[in-house]
Amino acid sequence: MSQRPLEEILHPKSIAVVGASDTGRGGGFLTPLQENYKGKIFPVNPKYSEIGGLTAYPRVNAIPGPVDYVISSIPAHQVLDLVEDCGQKGVKGLHLFTARFSETGRKDAAELEKEILKRTRAYNLRIIGPNCMGVYYPKEGIAFNSGMPMESGKVGLISQSGQVVGEIVSFAGQAGVRFSKAISYGNALDFNECDYLDYFAQDPETEIILMYIEGVRDGKRFPQALKKAASVKPVLVVKGGRGQAGTRATVSHTASLAGSQAVWEALVKQAGAVSVNNLEDLVDLTLAFNFLPPAKGRNLAVMGGSGGSSVLSADQCEEAGLEVIPLPQEIRSKLKESGSPIWDWIGNPADFSISMGDHDAAFKIGFLMAEHPSFDLIMAFVHGPWGRRAKNFSLEKHLTPYNMIQRFNKPAVFIYQEMRNQEKDDEDLAKIRGEIKGKLIEWNMAVYPTIRRAARALSAFVGYYENRK
Amino acid sequence: MSQRPLEEILHPKSIAVVGASDTGRGGGFLTPLQENYKGKIFPVNPKYSEIGGLTAYPRVNAIPGPVDYVISSIPAHQVLDLVEDCGQKGVKGLHLFTARFSETGRKDAAELEKEILKRTRAYNLRIIGPNCMGVYYPKEGIAFNSGMPMESGKVGLISQSGQVVGEIVSFAGQAGVRFSKAISYGNALDFNECDYLDYFAQDPETEIILMYIEGVRDGKRFPQALKKAASVKPVLVVKGGRGQAGTRATVSHTASLAGSQAVWEALVKQAGAVSVNNLEDLVDLTLAFNFLPPAKGRNLAVMGGSGGSSVLSADQCEEAGLEVIPLPQEIRSKLKESGSPIWDWIGNPADFSISMGDHDAAFKIGFLMAEHPSFDLIMAFVHGPWGRRAKNFSLEKHLTPYNMIQRFNKPAVFIYQEMRNQEKDDEDLAKIRGEIKGKLIEWNMAVYPTIRRAARALSAFVGYYENRK
Repeated sequence: MSQRPLEEILHPKSIAVVGASDTGRGGGFLTPLQENYKGKIFPVNPKYSEIGGLTAYPRVNAIPGPVDYVISSIPAHQVLDLVEDCGQKGVKGLHLFTARFSETGRKDAAELEKEILKRTRAYNLRIIGPNCMGVYYPKEGIAFNSGMPMESGKVGLISQSGQVVGEIVSFAGQAGVRFSKAISYGNALDFNECDYLDYFAQDPETEIILMYIEGVRDGKRFPQALKKAASVKPVLVVKGGRGQAGTRATVSHTASLAGSQAVWEALVKQAGAVSVNNLEDLVDLTLAFNFLPPAKGRNLAVMGGSGGSSVLSADQCEEAGLEVIPLPQEIRSKLKESGSPIWDWIGNPADFSISMGDHDAAFKIGFLMAEHPSFDLIMAFVHGPWGRRAKNFSLEKHLTPYNMIQRFNKPAVFIYQEMRNQEKDDEDLAKIRGEIKGKLIEWNMAVYPTIRRAARALSAFVGYYENRK
Repeated sequence: MSQRPLEEILHPKSIAVVGASDTGRGGGFLTPLQENYKGKIFPVNPKYSEIGGLTAYPRVNAIPGPVDYVISSIPAHQVLDLVEDCGQKGVKGLHLFTARFSETGRKDAAELEKEILKRTRAYNLRIIGPNCMGVYYPKEGIAFNSGMPMESGKVGLISQSGQVVGEIVSFAGQAGVRFSKAISYGNALDFNECDYLDYFAQDPETEIILMYIEGVRDGKRFPQALKKAASVKPVLVVKGGRGQAGTRATVSHTASLAGSQAVWEALVKQAGAVSVNNLEDLVDLTLAFNFLPPAKGRNLAVMGGSGGSSVLSADQCEEAGLEVIPLPQEIRSKLKESGSPIWDWIGNPADFSISMGDHDAAFKIGFLMAEHPSFDLIMAFVHGPWGRRAKNFSLEKHLTPYNMIQRFNKPAVFIYQEMRNQEKDDEDLAKIRGEIKGKLIEWNMAVYPTIRRAARALSAFVGYYENRK
């Protein structure tokens, strides 16, 4: 019998939350669904007749009408009964938030897990999990935490850890990235990493694939699945469990055997995917793929820094593997012709502080750099009105030149450091800082909090295009 | 004639701001002084009779009574006259914010700089700068930006760049670090890096020295000055101008010739100081020295992570050079005896999510780890009430166990990620997030925003004590 595909269970017309209660974790799944999901929601718990304003049912097959999708937060030993119920009811997908299976390292728990899989097969009931947070799919109004963004984006995320989904959606989200869908899949009892890769590879809603994986379930199929996905869209992979301690931790987290890191790195590279070491780097590189046009080279124009930050940007960009080339002579000549008093002094990085507060004059230099064919990439520092009164500050006027830098259709990254002091902070300034961040995101700019993070992300981004040649 | 020492000019009873105006940068120095400085303040500008409510004077020697310290923001070509005025008036220290000297790369500007130094010698007038932001000394109420913290701390900062002082004071400040004093010294025409090092080495108000340097002025004296300072307190040094582009940038920033990075690294290490590559790392390591007791080894207990973050903390800590050793058998036995249902499952990192929300049970494991002699270091994840209602959250109750972790007198670092979503964010949660951060700082805890940053800082911190053996 052919297995029901993932796509079929991702568009449920009704969802039951089994183990829901007024206080417990089951209720944690109920609340975000009530906030956003348009289909029918059925809380299931024999102890309640009503939960959160919804009629509660004692069990799944007591629910009137069809149920497409079930979220389980009941204890592990009750899941076999639930599977029977779901099977008889014609449920298509079962998300097992329920944990304490093979990841405990206990034999009976691992056997129970296997038995569950066997029983679902008879009903063509598919499982996401166990031991995971399941699906975040904003277009369908499905989220596993209150407040997850409900706008859709082009980034898809496959993760063995629900915590990681929460962090990535939050941190990339704060920088303006939105997701097509994310799936936390835990122990991968039924659908495994290869199924998810295949799905996201063909998913028209997803343009960039992120993956957090602790252990591969189908080692034979995985290299091909990864290669296939990476051949059609960028795939960024974080491997959890790289060292000794991490490998011990993956076993107790998702019952994964991690394997050799060197072999892994080679495999990922050969597949054309990008290996990333931590979530910070993953978020930073995601920003680049989400916001920037493709890169054509490593020559970088840096502008807008001030003194020490300008010097350190040169150091850190070079150390990250970017080429901070000298200012082309043609630009210097143009500046001289136009009467710039700093034509002989300014360089690359272009320290805008030496234009003594003349924002427009500084950006004239910036635009000359951005349009010059020697430069493939742009890095610009965004400043706020620090330590001065905010009265005469025009957000729109101040930020427009940064936005214009984007029009040269070269990958441009922006450094915006929220400098502030703890005490006596001017409320007007605090408000403006928030507005600056908001405006940059509104304009789809890739904004980084430090030079280091921007430089590393940009270099890895260029590397992706170099490797594809 | 012996030169007036730095200490003598850092406690002025009166300060004149030359070039002050209602709008310009001179006024930028005036405002923070007016907010905090207890001595007399004299704005100097022939175009005004009054600035910011203070009587303005046409020139320094028109000021009635003595003037100890002068801040200059007038153009470079007017500085020679100012020096004469200051000399006749008996001024002790002259801070030249004034720029466009040797850093322009122009011969006449460099000659003017030399002439200025020559003239000040005759009056025993000492110069800080030129081309710098000068002194931040909270105890004396001296700051160069509004809103810089006015509490004193134990960290001293020497920097060729004023921008760097602003960033370090802001970013370390947001994590609870306070400064004894900071000096931005620009082109180092008179006092140079060796003078500042000597000063901070003997300064009883300073326990940790940070340094941002682009070029050494006194190469003969520098190794000895650095060694002397590092022998009495930790010295953390960031070198700006490490690569080709950075070296070009140091010339135009502070007229510094940067020199070979390999030689530099060897020199710093031999002196017993710590070389750091960027401001993010500098801030992170400063936190460690500011808050932690000395380290005795590399064996690390990690606790409080959840699933993927727990796995990744193991990987990143190992990769940073820390030893995430297996959970000692004695701890497992104690857990078994006390009836813990996860005695066989929990490990190091201790994933607190498997205690299913039982905060107290989780911390019982945490305390067993913290007190066990196998562990030299502690890393703990601090969680907030994410994605749930904030109603029943007790800040004090929730955070107290983290504070108790500190009582084992081992270096303990804390990861606190401000997870949030852009939209529909609960205001109560936002408030609690701020309160958590505030409480951790109030309790003098070293808090980091990511695993990577905490792991790197902790490893470098241990390395410092290893190198001193």
